[in-house]
Formats: sequence, C-alpha cells, structure tokens
Amino acid sequence: MARASGGVAAIAGLLVIAAMGSADATGNATKAAGDVAFAAVDPFIGTGGEGHTFPGAVVPFGMVQLSPDTRIQPRNKAYGWAAGYRHDDTTIVGFSHTHFSGTGHSDLGDVLLMPVSGDAKLERGDPDKPGSGYTSRFSHDTEVAQPGYYAVTLADYGVRAELTAGERVGMHRYAFPAGKPAHVLLDLRTSMYDYPGKVSWSRIRVRADGTVTGFRETRGWAPGRQLYFAMRFSRPMTGHALDDTEENVAYKGFPPPGENDPAARAQIEGRQLVASFDFGDGAALGASSPLLVKVALSPVSEEGAIANLDAEMPDWDFERVRAAAKAQWAQALGVADIDAPAPMRKAFYTALYHAFQAPSLFMDADGRYRGPDNAVHQAKGWTNYSTFSLWDTYRALHPLLTILQPEQRTSDIVNSLLASRRESPYGILPVWAFHGLETWCMIGYHAVPVIADAYMKGIGGFDAKEALAAMVASATYGPYDGLGQYMQLGYVPIDEEGEAASKTLEYAFDDWTIARMASKMGDRGVAARFEQRAGNWKHAFDPETGFMRARKRDGSFRVPFDPEASGYGTDYTEGNAWQYSWYVPQDVAGLAAAHGGVDKLLARLDAVFDAKVDPKVFAHMEDITGLIGWYAHGNEPSHHVAYLYAYAGQPWRTQARLKQVMDTQYKPTPDGLAGNDDLGQMSAWYVFTALGFYPVAPGSNQYILGRPFVSKATLELPNGKRFTIVADHLDDAHPYVGSVTLDGKPLERVFITHQELMRGGELRFAMQVQPNRDWPGPDAQAPYSMSSD
Amino acid sequence: MARASGGVAAIAGLLVIAAMGSADATGNATKAAGDVAFAAVDPFIGTGGEGHTFPGAVVPFGMVQLSPDTRIQPRNKAYGWAAGYRHDDTTIVGFSHTHFSGTGHSDLGDVLLMPVSGDAKLERGDPDKPGSGYTSRFSHDTEVAQPGYYAVTLADYGVRAELTAGERVGMHRYAFPAGKPAHVLLDLRTSMYDYPGKVSWSRIRVRADGTVTGFRETRGWAPGRQLYFAMRFSRPMTGHALDDTEENVAYKGFPPPGENDPAARAQIEGRQLVASFDFGDGAALGASSPLLVKVALSPVSEEGAIANLDAEMPDWDFERVRAAAKAQWAQALGVADIDAPAPMRKAFYTALYHAFQAPSLFMDADGRYRGPDNAVHQAKGWTNYSTFSLWDTYRALHPLLTILQPEQRTSDIVNSLLASRRESPYGILPVWAFHGLETWCMIGYHAVPVIADAYMKGIGGFDAKEALAAMVASATYGPYDGLGQYMQLGYVPIDEEGEAASKTLEYAFDDWTIARMASKMGDRGVAARFEQRAGNWKHAFDPETGFMRARKRDGSFRVPFDPEASGYGTDYTEGNAWQYSWYVPQDVAGLAAAHGGVDKLLARLDAVFDAKVDPKVFAHMEDITGLIGWYAHGNEPSHHVAYLYAYAGQPWRTQARLKQVMDTQYKPTPDGLAGNDDLGQMSAWYVFTALGFYPVAPGSNQYILGRPFVSKATLELPNGKRFTIVADHLDDAHPYVGSVTLDGKPLERVFITHQELMRGGELRFAMQVQPNRDWPGPDAQAPYSMSSD
Repeated sequence: MARASGGVAAIAGLLVIAAMGSADATGNATKAAGDVAFAAVDPFIGTGGEGHTFPGAVVPFGMVQLSPDTRIQPRNKAYGWAAGYRHDDTTIVGFSHTHFSGTGHSDLGDVLLMPVSGDAKLERGDPDKPGSGYTSRFSHDTEVAQPGYYAVTLADYGVRAELTAGERVGMHRYAFPAGKPAHVLLDLRTSMYDYPGKVSWSRIRVRADGTVTGFRETRGWAPGRQLYFAMRFSRPMTGHALDDTEENVAYKGFPPPGENDPAARAQIEGRQLVASFDFGDGAALGASSPLLVKVALSPVSEEGAIANLDAEMPDWDFERVRAAAKAQWAQALGVADIDAPAPMRKAFYTALYHAFQAPSLFMDADGRYRGPDNAVHQAKGWTNYSTFSLWDTYRALHPLLTILQPEQRTSDIVNSLLASRRESPYGILPVWAFHGLETWCMIGYHAVPVIADAYMKGIGGFDAKEALAAMVASATYGPYDGLGQYMQLGYVPIDEEGEAASKTLEYAFDDWTIARMASKMGDRGVAARFEQRAGNWKHAFDPETGFMRARKRDGSFRVPFDPEASGYGTDYTEGNAWQYSWYVPQDVAGLAAAHGGVDKLLARLDAVFDAKVDPKVFAHMEDITGLIGWYAHGNEPSHHVAYLYAYAGQPWRTQARLKQVMDTQYKPTPDGLAGNDDLGQMSAWYVFTALGFYPVAPGSNQYILGRPFVSKATLELPNGKRFTIVADHLDDAHPYVGSVTLDGKPLERVFITHQELMRGGELRFAMQVQPNRDWPGPDAQAPYSMSSD
Repeated sequence: MARASGGVAAIAGLLVIAAMGSADATGNATKAAGDVAFAAVDPFIGTGGEGHTFPGAVVPFGMVQLSPDTRIQPRNKAYGWAAGYRHDDTTIVGFSHTHFSGTGHSDLGDVLLMPVSGDAKLERGDPDKPGSGYTSRFSHDTEVAQPGYYAVTLADYGVRAELTAGERVGMHRYAFPAGKPAHVLLDLRTSMYDYPGKVSWSRIRVRADGTVTGFRETRGWAPGRQLYFAMRFSRPMTGHALDDTEENVAYKGFPPPGENDPAARAQIEGRQLVASFDFGDGAALGASSPLLVKVALSPVSEEGAIANLDAEMPDWDFERVRAAAKAQWAQALGVADIDAPAPMRKAFYTALYHAFQAPSLFMDADGRYRGPDNAVHQAKGWTNYSTFSLWDTYRALHPLLTILQPEQRTSDIVNSLLASRRESPYGILPVWAFHGLETWCMIGYHAVPVIADAYMKGIGGFDAKEALAAMVASATYGPYDGLGQYMQLGYVPIDEEGEAASKTLEYAFDDWTIARMASKMGDRGVAARFEQRAGNWKHAFDPETGFMRARKRDGSFRVPFDPEASGYGTDYTEGNAWQYSWYVPQDVAGLAAAHGGVDKLLARLDAVFDAKVDPKVFAHMEDITGLIGWYAHGNEPSHHVAYLYAYAGQPWRTQARLKQVMDTQYKPTPDGLAGNDDLGQMSAWYVFTALGFYPVAPGSNQYILGRPFVSKATLELPNGKRFTIVADHLDDAHPYVGSVTLDGKPLERVFITHQELMRGGELRFAMQVQPNRDWPGPDAQAPYSMSSD
C-alpha cells in the first residue's frame, strides 16, 4: 500500500508536535495553518452566477457585514442582487453594513455610505448612465478582497476605498484626490432592493461632537425592522446637509431649525433621508492621510450603537482592525489543515469562510438585543445570534458548527433559538428569522433538528428541558402551515394547505429528532408520540407512482399529478416529485421497503441523476439550479440524495455521484457556486463532502461516508483533540474507496459517529481506480435508519 | 360696609379651624371645599364652539386622557375636532386614550376602542350614514361627565359605556344588551384627523394570557411618535380577529400563521391595523356584570405598558378607580374655595379643572420616558412631563401652577424642560413639545420665562446653573427662527424670516426673564447681555404709525404695511399690528414713552377695544377669535392687554375692560370659551382674573390687580398658608375697585407680589359703583417696568 508522500510527511510532523505536548507549538502550527487558510480564501467565489455571496469585510459571525452594493434593483428584478454585489456589474452604489450571504430572497443593505469627490449628487442615479447620480464605475483590477478586508477604487471619483470590520463596527478608509471637495454620502433610502413604502421611518442626527447617529425602520422581508447606527469620522466635518427627499408628503410638520439650510439641521426624520458630510478639499485626505469612518450598528438604540463603537473600536487604527479581523479568520479557518491542490484549497477555505458568516451576532456589547416581539431584551451569560435560514442550514451548516464551533457558538445559537421562542408572540421557535424578527419564509420547524442535533452530540450550555418544551411547542402549534391538520390526519392536506407533500415529509423528519432527544432525556411519552409522527412520511408515499405526493383531506392523492411540476401551487416547496421523494433520512429502510426493496430505490435514484431534463422546466423557480438530471444541487432538497446510495448498500455509487457533483457544481471562481450559498449550507455541504463524510440525518450522531476530495485534512478540534482524514492514492484516476480504517482498524461500515470524530484519531481511505463493491461488506453495521437500532 | 353673609360665615369657620391647628380638621375643610369644587365642574364647557376641550376621563396632569371621539375628519377639516369631541355632533366613533385639551392644531387619539353589539364592522363608516360602519349615534341625554368619569349610551348598540382613569391606565366599563354577540373593536388607524401615511407602523399582539399589547408610530404633528399600550379584559375572549386593511402594499412579507384565519393570528404589524375581540352573547355582559377593559399606555415599550397596568390598576374595581380619580380632583380643585353664584362656580372650577390637564405625565412607573431625540431615558428623582404648549401657557398657566402646584408640579416641569434640553438634538429647550417630541410649532423660546418665573419665585428642586445655561443656549441658537439675525441686528429681519415683528417682541421679553434670573444668580455678564437684548422691542416700534412692525435687513420697515393683516406672510404670528403692538410687558414705561407718553398709549389701547371690526378680516385665521374691537380674547397675544391700563395709571379702565371680557368671552356652557383653551391658558386667565390679579410679566414676581369676580376666594396654599381674597359689595352694580387692603392695611399700588401671596393673608377689595380714579394715587409704587426698580 503506497501512500502519498507529502501527506505522510505532514501528518508525521503534526504527530511529532502533538506528542511534544507543547500548547505553544501546537498553537503556532495552527496559526501557520490559519495563515495558509486565510490566504487561500477568495471572497469573490459566489459573487457571480446565483451564489449571492458578497465580497466585503466581515469577521466570523459578525453583526456588521460591510460590503459594496453594485446596483439597487426594483423588487421584481432583485433576485440576482440578494447580496448587493454582482460580479458582472461595473458600478458601485456605495458600501452598506448588513448583507445576507447567499440568500434567494433578500433584505438589509443598511446604512449605505459613498465617498464622493466634487459636487455631491444626492440621488444614486442610473448605473447605466455614468454621472447621472452618485453611483461610480469601478474595475475589478482595483479590487482586493480578503476575509475582513475589501478595497476598490471608485473610478468616477478617484477615491480609493477600503473596508474592514469588527463584530459590531465597520471601518472605512477613504483616500480622496486633491483639487475637489471630499464628501461622504449617507443614504438611508437604499436597500438590497427598493419599493415604495419600504422605509417606514428613519432618522439622521448630527451630534455636537460630530458623531452621526440614526435609525431606520423598514417593512421588508421582516416587518417593522429597526436598526440603529452611530458613525464617527477621523476628521471634523467642514459642513453637512440633511435632506428628506420624499415628495407629496401629507404631513411634514412645522419645519425644524434650518428649514432653508440643510447644513443647519441637527436632526431629520422621515422616510427618504439622505445626508452629505463635507470635509473640504481632498488634498488633505489623500493616501497619506485618508479619512477614516467608523460605523457601529445596534439592534436597540442610537446610544447602544455609540456604546458599541466606543467598546469595540475606540481608536483610529485601520491596520489594527484589519489585522484583528485577519487573526480571527486565521484562527477560525485554521481548524482545518488540508492538503490539496491550490484550486481545491481555495474552494475549500472559501467554503469554510462562507460557513462562518451566519447565524450572525445580533446583540449590543451590553447584551441587549431585539426579539421576535420587536421588543428589547437582555441576554445574561450568553450571546444572541440571528439570521436563521433554518430550512437550509439545519442540514449541514449547523452540524458542521457542532464539530468546529461547538460550545463557543452552537450553545449560544441554541440559547438564541430558545430566547426567540420565549419572546415569540406565537410561542414557537424561529422558522426563518433575521435581526430577531420572524419572516415565516420556507417550511418546517427546523430549529428543532438543530437543537436536537446539538443535544444528541452532548453540547451543553442550554436548558434541555426548556429546549424540549420549545421543540414540542413548535411541533404542535396548529395554526402554523397545516400543522393542525397534520396532527389530526398524519399529513398536511393539499386542499387546505399548499406544498403539502414537502411539509408532511419535513415535519416527519423534525418529529423524529424530537423523539431522539426525548428518548435520550428519558421522556418516554414525548419520545413515543413523536416517534409515531416520524412515520408520517408514509402518508405521502404513493406506491403507484413511487413518488411522494400530497393527499387531500379525504385521503386521496390530488390529481392531476405532474412529477415535473415544482413550487407554488404544487405539492412541493422549491422542488418537484423527482427532488422531494427521497426525503426520509430518519427511515431510509422504510423508504426502500416502500419502493419494494433497496434495489428498486437505487434504480429510482439513478433515474433522478440520469434523467434528461430541460432546465426550462424550472424557469419559474429561481432557486432550483445546479441540475444533474433531476438532482438540483443548487437547492437543499437534493443535498442528501447522493449519500443515499451508501445507506442502501452501494457506497461506490455515492462516491461516483459525489465526484459528479463536486466536478460540476463548484468552481473556485466568482460563478463557482451552482446556486445560492444559503447562509453557508452549500458551503458546508462542500466542506463535509471534501472531508469525506456528511450528516444525512442530523440528530443521528452519524456522518455517512462519501469519499474525501483532499489528500489529507487535519481538524484541530476545539476540545484539543485532532482528527485527521487521509485519502491514500487520491487523484482523478482513483475516485473510489477501496477500504477505510479508523485509527488503523478496518472500518466495516459506511459511517462514523460524532463521538468517534470528536475523540480524535485518523480516518484513512484507500482510494482506488475501480469501485469496491465488497466494502463495507454484507455484515457491515448499517447506518441509522437502515437498521433496527 | 356690608358683607356677603355666607362668605363671612365660611371665612370665620375656616379661620376657627385654622386656629385650632388641626391638620385633620383643615383637611376635612379642604375636602369639603374639594367636593363642592368637584361637583361644580362641567367638563362639557369648551367642547362646543372652538374651545376644543374634551369631556372624557382624566386625573390631574394624567398621561391617559380617555375620551369619546365624535367624528374623524380629514386634515383640512380638522380644526374643530382637535380634541376629538364636538358637542354638536351626534355620533361617537370610539373612545381613545390621548387628547389635547384646547389646542388649535392637533394629533393624538391613540388606541381607539369601540364596544359594539351584533356584527362587528371593521370600518368606522360615514357618521352621516348610520350603520355604514361601527360609528354609533348617541344622545347628550345619556351622557354624564365629571372629572375622572364619563358615561354615554351608544344608541346603535344599546351599549352603556363608562370611562374612568388613573395616571397611566384608563378603565372602560361596557354593559352590553342580551341576544347579540358582544365585541370590543380596537382601531389603530384613527387619530384626531387622518391622512394617508400618518401611521408609519403599528402592531397588535394577543398574548397567551389574553393581554393585548401593541404600539403605534405616527408622522403627525410630531414626527416618528411611538406610543405603546397594554390592554386587559375582565372576561376571557371567546375569539379575536386581527386585520391589516391596507391595500396595495408593496410588501406584506410571508404570511404568518393564521393567514386565512384572522382569529389564529397572535400578532400583526402594518400601517392600517384593526382588531375585534369577541365575548360571546351580551346576555352575560349586562349592567349587572359588565365587561371591564383596562388600557395602559407607555412611551417606552409594551412591557412598560404592562408594568404600568400592573403597578397602577391591579384590580377590577371600576368604582374604586373612579373614586380615586374623584379624590384626586377634589384635592386639586379644593385649593380654591370660592364664594360665587352657581354659574360662576361652574365656570371657575371648570377653568381650574382645565388648567390641571397639562403639562401631562409622560413617564412609565419605572421612570423611563422618551425624549426629543426619540430615545428612551430614565428619570431619577423627578417626574417627566410633556405637552408643552409654551407660547400659550407661559403667560398665565405656568404662573398659576407656581401658586397652586409649586414644588409638586412646577419643579418637575422645570426638570422635564431641562431634561428635554439635554436630550435635544439641537441642545435647546422645548418650543412646542408633546410625548417628548418637538413640533417646532409657534414662536419664541418660552420655556425660558417658565423657568425664570419659577426660579424668581424661589421654587427649587432643579439645578439653577444648568437651567440658566439651557436658557442662554435656547436664546442663542442661531438657526432657530431668525435668532441668528436677531442676535446680529437686534431684530428679526422680515426679508429673511416670516412673522418677524412677533418674533422680535417675544424674544425680547424672554431675554428679559433671562436677565432677571441671571441677575438674581449673580451672573452679571449674562444679566447685562440679556438686559440689553430685552430692549430689542424698540427695533420693532414704528413711531410713525405707532405700531410694532417688521424691519428688513437694511433697517427699513417692510412696505406696504397693513395694520389689519394677520398671520402667515405678515409681520405677525396669529395676530395683526393692532394685537401685537402692546407686547412689551418687560418695559411698559418704555412702550408708553415710545408712544409719546402714557396718555397716548392709553388712547391707543382704547382704540384697540373700541374699534369697529369686521370679523371677516380674520376668516383665514382660525385661532383669532373672541373679538372686542381688535382685542381677541380667543388668542394669547391679547391676554395681557386689559391689564396695561392699570400699569399705566388707570386701573379703573382695566377693571371695566375685564368686566367686558368676562361678560362676553366665558359662559358656563359647551360653547362657553371664546377660543381654544390652549392647554389651560384661557382657563388660567379666567382663574386669575376671577381672583382679581394677573401675571402680566412672568419673571417679575408681581401680579397686576384687576378686580375680583368672586365675593370671596380662599386659596389653601401648598405651603400650608392660606390666602384669602374678598370683594366687598361685589355685584354687577359695583364693578369698580374703591380701595384695597392687604392684611388690613391699605394697598396703594396696583400689584401684589408672589411673596405676599404665598405668605398667606387677606386681600380685600372694596367694590363700588363708580371708578375710583384716585386709587392707588399719584404716589403709588409703580409695578415692575413702570418704575426704575
């Protein structure tokens, strides 16, 4: 058995260091790995195509996500601009402080700043007509994007703009050209996309000490969202103008002081506010003495934002902030030290980078935050996070965090979910929440598997009894999305609730995770009740067509039935029958049996991947992308499907399918993501799959083995242990797993457990040219839901 | 000398009790006086005509001012409905929890409830088309209005509705008819008047325990005003429906649970919210077991409202709350025990009642409130008040409070003004503020004389140094209403700032009060600077026409000049040259000299009162009413004018003019106020004038004597002293003052000082048939500003 020599050397070196027991030495090694990882990240990956990531400055899970917005679209054209930036655009509107990483639907884009030189136009103008507004052209040649840092030259102004960020504060550095007046515009009217009435109220205040504060309240994806800010400049303003550009306002009230002189206004309130802050001739603000701007956010108040600013960024040292952001990223990314070619390293570390953007901090330095009741609450002893894209992220992103960010992050995420439930007007866990507020987007109650997965993995720091109560409450809240009918009938009836097949399937999985957790806690009543509900997927299965379908209240399947039809009005959520019919991770054995045996299920899976599909069938569904046959890697319902072969006794088929997916659906380029990154779910899939395993059923504590795509990966686990994955002979000619050892012993099963991973050790794959149909062998231990465990 | 026997007996009795030194006995006497006073109040006075008072339930200076609204008008028809209720209306829309007492401009009308029987219509309908909405007809015959209590029968529903109130909580009692379902509607869409976009955001939440909470944010008279509420019912709801009736909303978000079933909604947010709360058949909610509703307000949060509700009104005892409100009013009104015929008693005590409505409490039970920066602040050791109609109330209302509510209320009012200045984005004192927010309505910086008057009268409990600094800051804030030019030129130039003559005059008076206070504090620099500014009125005086006029920057008076022209676009604010030209209370001697002597000034005053004026000349000015010649008692610029005769050595002329005003401008009937009560200024004028003196120049510590309109008045001063006014021989045939004694000694001057009043004693007027042109005589001590004191 030959081994890749580089990998061996690296492993040997690490083992020696570990044997020395020197924390410093280990720390240095991790730091070195972190620096390498940091350098490998390319934040532009996903900013083209429909990845919807952004290239701006952010620290891991930071509240400020400061990034350029290239174009503001009306709502009906907004899909491609969900993160504000599209790589094929040639203009920049400004730099705003909040962004989603990889959503389909969008919002945010708060507190947009734009440095301009010359006359200050207060309208952003038409990006296709240079000079029509303050929007500027730019060239990618002038851009630099690294974790925690972004720079660009605004061509229309000759302004060099650099961005960096802390957790709650963004810092801008603007170098202006000489000979023209330098201004910084603040536009509270813009968002990821605009429509009339989006801004319900806003305020800008220039305080006596030059601090600018304000807030904005929007009816966007979340209703009544309030966000406060505080901004300071490194130089005194020479002037300012505050303007409300709304026309035909029924009531603007009596004019405040400065009615005829925007420069004399100390505060304005309204729905269409813009401000210009002036700094005299740019000669004094060139590259050697640029203007610095600090912008702090707060969910609570202007005072909260000022306090955040003072607590986090008291100085004016851009390079210190940038270095601190780099250090945080190096530490976060350095947990995985991989041995792979440069393009793979770039894709891998960028995926890890994108996996560490959300859920994001949503709390002031003093522990206050805003909850789903839109009221201010105080966190005591934990940190509040928001931006929960749970329908996406419960699958792989949260399981990845249970490995790489368990106590530090995962417990706080669970605590945040529980707090949100306590504060919820509905008494249930978040569905799709950001900035504390519920959007009711997507389906299921997938906070439930996130909590159950954490609990099953032994992650503490939260009240398990409260958690189970919250999960049960969410799973029994009748008015939610047909749940009352589901509890009555065992399925969601399509004549009463849309997309009923998807809902039935996902409820059943979530229910299974409640049963798992209740069982471990010794609550037999809850366990039995939800174990039974976990079988409700059977009500969606149509033996005649072999598809999951939606029944009506009378028990009959809805007709006519079109297995190719997807989305609104159909039985499915962002998918069709070909995509949704394999979603029973809690009972793959049952699914196979329903199909008439494993072989028949496997044939159906092949039919999914091998179908000839005209992508036009999904032209109306923005989110269904990344097609391989019917398999749509660009959207989440497909994410576990390639792994089902391994469940069903044909791991070599999983290995082949994964190569097919990895080869076609990810590239280390701006258009390198096959679909929305969805707050890190697409990226987390990539990280897991590259490492060789995947959490098909969160809550099972098992990771299903695929095959590694890196020669070696060393995970420096937060518990101080080290888990190493090695893929011997790995190259394109050796795509199949011949055998696997765990800590040197043959592994005759297609999964490893979370406990095995976290106790450290070595998982070694022997890669080979041909499939090994004999591994793991007929006597192999079956993974959860393929056995009677 | 005959005395009114009843008055003598009462005085004798009180003196005996006082001599006994028994606090209890004094208390009982006061209580008896209070009960009499309470019974005399008629809250309907001012609800007709253009008084703009409301008949609903309120405790003295209470935050909740709960009253029926008879009709909601569009903004251009709203003047007559500034307090929500017009006595000549025949419908009631509902009962809302905030009202202004006597404003011209308006806002508020928050949290409107309407009890309905039968089908619940969710639109208020057209009041002229019964049954077109939830608005109901009513008859005055069914109404009862007392301080702290209001009742009416809603004819369309047969519902008997009663209202009472505490400081922060209103209580409703609704008796429903049997045989129809009983509902309570909550409409967050209505205000004193409506216009598109007024409600920028709002929320209604039904909590698991049946508590309903929410908030409303409005762009009304004040921008971005947020008000929170919490509501509880004495019976469990049988159902509820929450609806957002806004149409064509660009974004309502993903539907929350209950999208098809308003009854399943736990919370809604939006701009046009209405709710129906259901209580089953009215049979269970009849007169013997009516439904009770408690509604608490908070400037801060829904939790704040809940805490206010729990702290103030934990029980369900309507009669207890009503009795407590009555007791508070009896105590507040009982400070003045008057001997007068019933109509006069009614008018007097109702005036006192109206004088005790504002400034009103604006603070949660825990001391938190919202300031002019629209942020939440914490009061420590003082109580926050808002609703500052200062242009009106600095004249007589605040001076009245320095006598009747000095430490208890006046220091807290000053502390509230100072806090507001600390929190002001402009760093200045309030101009016209309510619910913490600045409206920039009217002119001047009249918080300044309010504070100076309190300080000069020795009222403590605030930081005088901070106060003086705040006053100077307000008087030197250049961007405010031409103040920069005023400081530069000594007057406001009309070519740069409207209504410049009025502004120059009022700034100069306010400046004089700063000089007074600074002088007393020993700050000679400030005193000298503002003493000089106090003379700026001279720049407005045109010796050629004898009128105050506005100059242009070049020093010339603006032409053409029309002394009859008033209001917008003219030299004056809510007035004309005939009304504004006598506003120099700080230097009446100077004013007389400018006219060429006292006699010439007196002739001009006669010309004011005796002019033949066609009221149509003020048809465009809603606020200029109550005409006697050019004298307009319905608006504040005239309020001191009748007293100027006394200043100028002809007190008998003051006495005659006062009788003319009292006889024509006040009636104890709904249309009994000649103009807007203006948060108690009209009423305070009445109280002072009825007692026989008036504070022409707040800050002077002098009250100019007019003549009493009551035979006797005993003021039980908060310092434990008693001040008695007696008018011997008082009747219509004896309208003139023959002589005056203070504590038995002849008073040979036309004023008393605040100190004389507050040390207790007896002021006795001998009324007679003919004017006594010899009193106070040629050697009399002149009042402030007629002497060199």
